[in-house]
Amino acid sequence: MNTQPDLTRADTRTRLLEAAGETFADLGFRNTTVREICRRAGANIAAVHYHFGGKEELYLAVLTHSAAASMERNPLGGAPAPGATAEDRLESFVTSFLERLLDEGRPAWFGKLMAREMFEPTRGLDRIAQEFARPQYGRLSEIVAELLGPAATETRVKLCCSSVLGQCLFYKHARPMIDRLMPGQAFEPEQRAALAAHITEFSLRAIRSMRESAATGRGG
Amino acid sequence: MNTQPDLTRADTRTRLLEAAGETFADLGFRNTTVREICRRAGANIAAVHYHFGGKEELYLAVLTHSAAASMERNPLGGAPAPGATAEDRLESFVTSFLERLLDEGRPAWFGKLMAREMFEPTRGLDRIAQEFARPQYGRLSEIVAELLGPAATETRVKLCCSSVLGQCLFYKHARPMIDRLMPGQAFEPEQRAALAAHITEFSLRAIRSMRESAATGRGG
Repeated sequence: MNTQPDLTRADTRTRLLEAAGETFADLGFRNTTVREICRRAGANIAAVHYHFGGKEELYLAVLTHSAAASMERNPLGGAPAPGATAEDRLESFVTSFLERLLDEGRPAWFGKLMAREMFEPTRGLDRIAQEFARPQYGRLSEIVAELLGPAATETRVKLCCSSVLGQCLFYKHARPMIDRLMPGQAFEPEQRAALAAHITEFSLRAIRSMRESAATGRGG
Repeated sequence: MNTQPDLTRADTRTRLLEAAGETFADLGFRNTTVREICRRAGANIAAVHYHFGGKEELYLAVLTHSAAASMERNPLGGAPAPGATAEDRLESFVTSFLERLLDEGRPAWFGKLMAREMFEPTRGLDRIAQEFARPQYGRLSEIVAELLGPAATETRVKLCCSSVLGQCLFYKHARPMIDRLMPGQAFEPEQRAALAAHITEFSLRAIRSMRESAATGRGG
C-alpha cells in the first residue's frame, strides 16, 4: 500500500496552516484572500476547501492549532505537586503563563494575530477565550480567592487576577518598549525565572497584606 | 487680507494626519502608499511633500501629534500638590496613566498604530520612547525608589515599575479578552477610578511589604 497520498495531504495541510498564519498576520482577516494564502503555500484553492472548508474555518484552525501547540509545550499552571499550597500554585501558574507568553517555539505570526484580535476582534477571539483563556482564568481565580481568604470578594478576586495577568502580559505586549527603556533586560531562561519570581513575590505580598487588613479590620 | 489660503492649508494638514493615521493603522507602514493616504484625504501628493516632506516624516508626525494631544488631555503624573508624599504621587501617576491609556478622545487608529509598533517597531517607536515614555518612566522610577527606601536596588526598582505599568496596560492591551472573561467590567469614569485605586493599593502594599522585610532582614 502506498502512503504517499496521505503524506502529501498532511504536508499540504501544514503548509496551508503556516502560510495562512503568516498571511492573516500580515494583512488581517478581511484583507486576506484564499488565493494569496495558496500562492504562498504553493497549494491550490481546492485544497483549502478540502482541508478546512473555507477562509473563516481556516482562520479558526490557525488560531486554535497554534494556541494548542503552545499549551502543550507549557501546560496550564505547570504541574503543581498534589497538596501544593496556594502560594506554590500561584508561582507555578505565573511561571508557565510567562513561559507561554515568551514561548520562542511559537511562530512570530501568532503574536501578531493575537494583537490584531485585540483591536479588531473576530469570532476567533471568542473561540480562544472560550477554549483557552477561560479555564486558565478560572484556575487563577481559585488560587487568588484562596490566598485572599476572608478578604476575597468577587470584585477583589477579579482585580487581583488582573494585577497578576497584567504583570505577566507586560513582558509580551510591551517588549519593544522595554528594549528601549530598559536596554539591559534579557529574556533568557535565567531572566524569565527571575521575572516569574518577582511577579509571584509582588503579588503574594500585596494579597497577604490585603488579607491581614481584612482580618484585623484595618485599612491599607 | 484674505485668510482663506491659510485655513485651507491647516485643513489639508489635519485631513492628511487623520487619513494617514487610519491608513497606516489599517495597512501598516510598509504597505501604505502616499497615494492611498491622499485618496482618503482628498488631497494631492504635492500636499504631503509640502506639509511633511515624505511618507516617513508623515508617519512620525502622526505618531507624535497624537501622543502629544493625549498627553495634553491627561498631563504626566496628573498635578500632585507640592510636597505630596510618594504614595500620593504614585496614585496620581497611575490615575493619569490609566486615563491616557483608556482615553476616549484619542482616535481608534492610535491604539492600532502602537500595537503595530509593538510587533514591527519602526523609527516611530524610538521617537515615542524617547520623547514620551522615557520621562514618564523616569518619574515612576523616582516614586518607586522612594517608596522602597532601603529595599531599593536598581533591579528591584525596575521590576516594581514594570509591575505598576503592566497592571495599567492590561486594561488597554487585553480589553477584548476582558470583555469576554469579565463581562460585567465597565470602563466609565467611576470604574476607571476604582481600577486606579486598586492598582495603587496593590502596588503600595507589595512595595511596603518589601521595604519592611528589608528593614527587619526577614524574607517575604
